[in-house]
Parts: sequence; structure tokens; C-alpha cells
Amino acid sequence: MSLRSERLRLRVRFGETDAAGIVFYGTFLSWFDAGVSNLIRIPGIPSAQKDGKPTFVLPIVEVNAKFFAPLRVDEEFDLVSTAVKIGTTSVRVEHEAFALDGTRIAAGFEQRVHCRIVEGTFIKEPIPSVLHAHLSEGKDGTE
Amino acid sequence: MSLRSERLRLRVRFGETDAAGIVFYGTFLSWFDAGVSNLIRIPGIPSAQKDGKPTFVLPIVEVNAKFFAPLRVDEEFDLVSTAVKIGTTSVRVEHEAFALDGTRIAAGFEQRVHCRIVEGTFIKEPIPSVLHAHLSEGKDGTE
Amino acid sequence: MSLRSERLRLRVRFGETDAAGIVFYGTFLSWFDAGVSNLIRIPGIPSAQKDGKPTFVLPIVEVNAKFFAPLRVDEEFDLVSTAVKIGTTSVRVEHEAFALDGTRIAAGFEQRVHCRIVEGTFIKEPIPSVLHAHLSEGKDGTE
Amino acid sequence: MSLRSERLRLRVRFGETDAAGIVFYGTFLSWFDAGVSNLIRIPGIPSAQKDGKPTFVLPIVEVNAKFFAPLRVDEEFDLVSTAVKIGTTSVRVEHEAFALDGTRIAAGFEQRVHCRIVEGTFIKEPIPSVLHAHLSEGKDGTE
Repeated sequence: MSLRSERLRLRVRFGETDAAGIVFYGTFLSWFDAGVSNLIRIPGIPSAQKDGKPTFVLPIVEVNAKFFAPLRVDEEFDLVSTAVKIGTTSVRVEHEAFALDGTRIAAGFEQRVHCRIVEGTFIKEPIPSVLHAHLSEGKDGTE
Repeated sequence: MSLRSERLRLRVRFGETDAAGIVFYGTFLSWFDAGVSNLIRIPGIPSAQKDGKPTFVLPIVEVNAKFFAPLRVDEEFDLVSTAVKIGTTSVRVEHEAFALDGTRIAAGFEQRVHCRIVEGTFIKEPIPSVLHAHLSEGKDGTE
Repeated sequence: MSLRSERLRLRVRFGETDAAGIVFYGTFLSWFDAGVSNLIRIPGIPSAQKDGKPTFVLPIVEVNAKFFAPLRVDEEFDLVSTAVKIGTTSVRVEHEAFALDGTRIAAGFEQRVHCRIVEGTFIKEPIPSVLHAHLSEGKDGTE
Repeated sequence: MSLRSERLRLRVRFGETDAAGIVFYGTFLSWFDAGVSNLIRIPGIPSAQKDGKPTFVLPIVEVNAKFFAPLRVDEEFDLVSTAVKIGTTSVRVEHEAFALDGTRIAAGFEQRVHCRIVEGTFIKEPIPSVLHAHLSEGKDGTE
């Protein structure tokens, strides 16, 4: 069994660095989020609704990240995001960032819960079957 | 006549600096926006609707900023935001940032248009009278 | 024994929200960082060096955050940041965010290591005694 | 004569949107900056120094942007950044953002000044000849 995993090549923007001369660590959560957007994008299904809200609403209930090596401005790196556990309403995604020479930069996970937004309230709801199937399908086409 | 003007004391966050050792200039647009939020906040009227959308939707159609001196991490400064022209649907806000020793850090303006959002489309609409009155009222209570 | 703890009142900026209508969770890491800056600020010691680098360089090696309730644009909240363990070179800081009605919004921790930067390389180094003493001192003046 | 112009394909990240359901306009300054990084990148010259500072320090003295249409989460777009005037110490860069269907999203310019950083002070200095030549060279190899 292999769940869906996607590799995203990113480049450090100047505004993502800080006065210590390296990437501001908070930036990694934006990248993790970009990794998840990449993972849940399904051909033929728009990512946003008419009102701008994301099609799949997956707020984070827990995030963890460990940092092993710094990144510098304009440096390219790869973010590998992998669905590691899919429950009825929740999904756990693991992220790893690698410099182009293979150095492990950071690793972490996010625990997310699928929700429907009703008048501003987030209500837990089963993951839609189309998303469940998409996340369950590894690159080799097997589950 | 004096229109509404508000002073906001802010402090540079570490993540708002960049690898050149000073504030990343893009951060000023976030601060300008905080200045506008401060300017349009009316006692007794919630800033957000139930669905999270801002009560007053004022997208920017033009922004301009000039930068005169840098700010460093953890430095405090004042942002003065002033409504300088209020039209039927638009408002022009000027911003100036000052270090605590009075040094002028940056100055700029935003041209904003009041909108209603209908199914994700932004439709120009007259500024609500309560907001118009609020912005028109200077600190000395005169218009 | 009580280590240093600081409460910081913050307000959600518009640019810190996302299209789901609530605070973008990545923003919490910027706030945690603001909490740490607040915690390590020592009267009489500038927070930044001449070259813009922070006086105390404390990169994060691990961060964890759990999210319990959303925040909306312009909402005020309190961030309580507490030094919970100070080692020779490391410090662990716990953060809790509360809405003004007391609702617990988020909680997390950061594990940080004190470093000296030598030609761009981060070298682990004992926490300076002045910072160690500052973080060790609770609000009641005892350790 | 044609100066250097580069096209950069970007995608809106979730954290770059705001509670109005579209891109937070402040984000454009980060994108403009990414466009400049792309424009000044010279093969064989690292973008960052050993201490993390950018190789070419080009602080912004003025920025202007006009916004014509919104972008939504996960939407792809093109940013075209063009050096339009190169002086002894300054460079003016124009930016235009286009949706993939050709809709003009935003347009603006940045006026930047080349500096050397001496003990944290930014000192105006002629643009290095290698950068001047790079920016002066259009895609067709002519100046």
C-alpha cells in the first residue's frame, strides 16, 4: 500500500528570510500548506469555490516541525508531502524538506480535519470520497 | 475640517525582517492594512461578519510607498494613518511611519473602493453612511 | 520556582487571515516568535546588533502547536509565553493563546538553541548568563 | 534596445489569501521581490553571501502597485518583471501580473538603489558592472 506523495520544488524568497540571514522558520508552515494544496489538487475540480473559500476545507489541529539545517535566500529545495494516514474525517500529512544536494532541512507533520463551514462555524464532516480516493492512490496506482 | 487620523504603535517582529538585517519592505503593506483596520473600527460594530468576511470590504486599487530609513528587529515605531479624501465609493488613506526618535521611516497612500461581495464578485457600492461619518470625524469632533 | 512568563496582547491583522475566513495557522509561528522576543528583551540591552542581527540568536530546533478554536480578523487575544526549561545551550518555551473571553485558542512549544553565528554558520554556545538570569526570574522575583 | 525581462510562473498559496476570499494585496510585494530576485540572478554567481546577506543589496526606495482583478487560492499566474531604467546606482523595475487567461491582475514598479552595507549602514554605491551588464541585456542578446 502506498498513499499519495508529491514533491514540490520551491525557492526561498527574500521576504521569507530573517535578520539572522536564513529562512524564518515560521515560513515552513506556509510551505507545508503549499505542499498540502499540491497534494489535494484533483484534475477537473477547481481548488476554490465561487466565494473564494477552498473547495476542501482542512483546518490544522496539530502541527509539528523539526529543523536540521538552514536555507538561504534564493536557494532551491524540495518539499515532499505525503498522506500517511486517512481517517473518516482526518488526514495526517508528513512533510520533509531537502536541499538540492540532499541535505535534510526540516521534517514535520500536520494533523488536519475535514470540515464544512456553516455560517462561519467549522463542522467536522467525513472526507469526500473523491478526495479520499485521490489521497489513497500512490504514484504507482496502487493503494 | 479634519478627517479621522489614528496613530498605531507597532513593534517589528523577527519574521518581518529579511537577510539584509532590516524590515522587509513588503511588511509595510501589512502595517498599512493594520492602520486602515484601526481607522475603520467603529465601537459597537463588529469588524468581522459571521462568515469571517470583514464588515467593511475595502479592496485596494492603488498603493504607493516611499522608504526613507530602515527599521530593525524589535524596534518600536508609530504608524499614522489618515483618511485624506472620502468619495462616494472610495477612500484615500495616507500613512506615515516614524521611529520613536521622530525619524521618518516611510510614507505612502492607499486608494480603496468600498465593495459588496456577491458570490465572490466584488461590486462597487457607496460607503455606508456610518463608515462615512466615522471617517469624516476628526479627533477634535469637527468635520 | 517560577521561570519568566510574559503576556502579550495582539490583534489579528487582515493579512493574517485566509480564504477560510479565519487566521491562517502559519501565523501562529510569527506570534510565538513575537512572544519569545518579548520574553528575551532585557532593559538596557538592545535587541539588535549594529548589523541588524538579533543580539540573542536562538534558532528553533522543534516547534509544536495545537489549535482549538479559530480567530477572526481584527480580534484581540492574549499570548502567554513561558520559559519552562533552561539548559546550558537550550531553552524550551511554551505558548498559549486565549481569546479575550478566556477561550483557549492554541497551545504549543518551541525548543530553541542559543548560537553564535560565525561566517554564516550557526555554532551552539552556552546561553549568556545575563539571558539565563533574565529567563530564570519569575514575575515574583524568585527563581 | 531591450533591457532584461523575465516571466515567472507563480501559484497563490492559501496563506497568501485573506478573509475576503482573494489574495491579500500585500502579498504582491513579496511576488515583486521574487521577480527581482529572478531578474538579478546571474549564472555562476551565488545569490547569497556566506553570512546570508544577498550578494546584490538593492533596497526599495519607492514602490507602486495598481490592482485590476483578484486572484484566488491555488490559482496560477505569470509575473513579468522588466528592468526599465538603469542608472549609476539605481534601477527601476516594472512588474505586471497576468492570469493564465491573459487577464491583467496588477501592475506596478519599484525604484531600487544599489547599496553596500557597512556595519549595518546602507551606503549608496554604483551598480556592479556584472549586474549592470546582466540587466542591460535583453532576451535577444542586444542591449
